[in-house]
Amino acid sequence: MLLVRFQTKEKKTPLYGIWAENHVTVIVSSPFEGMIVGTSEKYDVNDIVILPPCEPTKIVAVGLNCKNHAAEINMKLPDEPLIFIKPPSSVIGPEDTVKLPKQSSHVEYEAELGIIISERCRNVSEDKVKRYILGYTCANDITARDLQKKDGQWTRAKSFDTFCPLGPFIADNINPCDAKITCHVNGEKRQDFTTATQNFNAFFLVSFISQIMTLEPGDVILTGTSVGVGKLDAGDEVIVNIKGIGELKNKIA
Amino acid sequence: MLLVRFQTKEKKTPLYGIWAENHVTVIVSSPFEGMIVGTSEKYDVNDIVILPPCEPTKIVAVGLNCKNHAAEINMKLPDEPLIFIKPPSSVIGPEDTVKLPKQSSHVEYEAELGIIISERCRNVSEDKVKRYILGYTCANDITARDLQKKDGQWTRAKSFDTFCPLGPFIADNINPCDAKITCHVNGEKRQDFTTATQNFNAFFLVSFISQIMTLEPGDVILTGTSVGVGKLDAGDEVIVNIKGIGELKNKIA
Repeated sequence: MLLVRFQTKEKKTPLYGIWAENHVTVIVSSPFEGMIVGTSEKYDVNDIVILPPCEPTKIVAVGLNCKNHAAEINMKLPDEPLIFIKPPSSVIGPEDTVKLPKQSSHVEYEAELGIIISERCRNVSEDKVKRYILGYTCANDITARDLQKKDGQWTRAKSFDTFCPLGPFIADNINPCDAKITCHVNGEKRQDFTTATQNFNAFFLVSFISQIMTLEPGDVILTGTSVGVGKLDAGDEVIVNIKGIGELKNKIA
Repeated sequence: MLLVRFQTKEKKTPLYGIWAENHVTVIVSSPFEGMIVGTSEKYDVNDIVILPPCEPTKIVAVGLNCKNHAAEINMKLPDEPLIFIKPPSSVIGPEDTVKLPKQSSHVEYEAELGIIISERCRNVSEDKVKRYILGYTCANDITARDLQKKDGQWTRAKSFDTFCPLGPFIADNINPCDAKITCHVNGEKRQDFTTATQNFNAFFLVSFISQIMTLEPGDVILTGTSVGVGKLDAGDEVIVNIKGIGELKNKIA
């Protein structure tokens, strides 16, 4: 099942729906509140605006979770997940534009699998993690590489407004430990990997992070990128595609 | 004026009030929505539970903002503010307990001035910052020093649940560029400084951060600590006191 958070072109209230080829079926309540049940309210996909898939209280991202990517940015593979936080203000949806900030002259894409938490949890063991996951989405962990290097701490480099495109859908039935991810810039393939190559897998990461901080419904965990990151320029179009989820397309300005 | 966020012992709904010696006067709406006006509803201070002063969407903290503190933890003073983010899940109030996590064997206090944002803002110049500040509160940027060193990135070390005590009051009339801060552990003075010694002052910091990310009502900026940080053990009581605000007292467990 593919869930979508959207608004109709007339009404601004965000709704959740089930996505099928040409239409969206509104569901009874939020997917974070009990069963996902369709209503009789349907919209043509051409009459809606797709929103970011959730409203996280925090985005917890994992750095250097792939040997080859760590090497390409001259960093060591850590022996435990290395986490950082992107603020809710950085989130945009699949129809929004990434804005290059004046403080940086080198902004890069990083295609990643995003995990969306379904309910409040803390100290979850790896074998119980699945019940707290609503589903998976495409993410782009936009990073000002020059500021990342200058600061040492990664927060500024990764926290600018528009630096966390998410979407378009929440898929509940993909295998997050072998998700096939590509990233294209202006139609040219730049990244092509599976999360099976990650140092720490999705379930381990959720468990690890839940032992540090309480996770809330809608919180997002970014599982880390692989090789092939590169610079974005104004006018570019970047697409993160994850098999079974869809295509997260954003323009750069 | 001192504002307090609280609940009565019977009702669990959070309220905002104006604090006077023995009682709290409930205000008409939230201080983030227009004028702060008292109602006829009053409570004895013994009949209330003080809550964290706000519900931030993010806590943006500034590291190494004091030459002597940078030296004491063997780090260099940066030429621009060095920011990191603490998640909303780390916030506790003045009547809550800091819980030492099993992952760390060396947790420290860091007394700091917290700035509370009043309304959504972005790209605010330093001379216009004041209108977006609701007031100031006491903060304790609890840090697992061993994990901070191990990770390099500071996020895990500073993001555990209960690692961000805030409160008890929001003061609107102190000078954040010369706030007098002390920290006592079990009655013994460990920190005693003024924010006048900070490398980047409060107004500069709000402006700097607002050029990276949109700030929301209730968001908190922690301005950085000074020398004298040290270890906390189970059973300790740590008090951050800022002249004109009050005393943020937390037990450690």
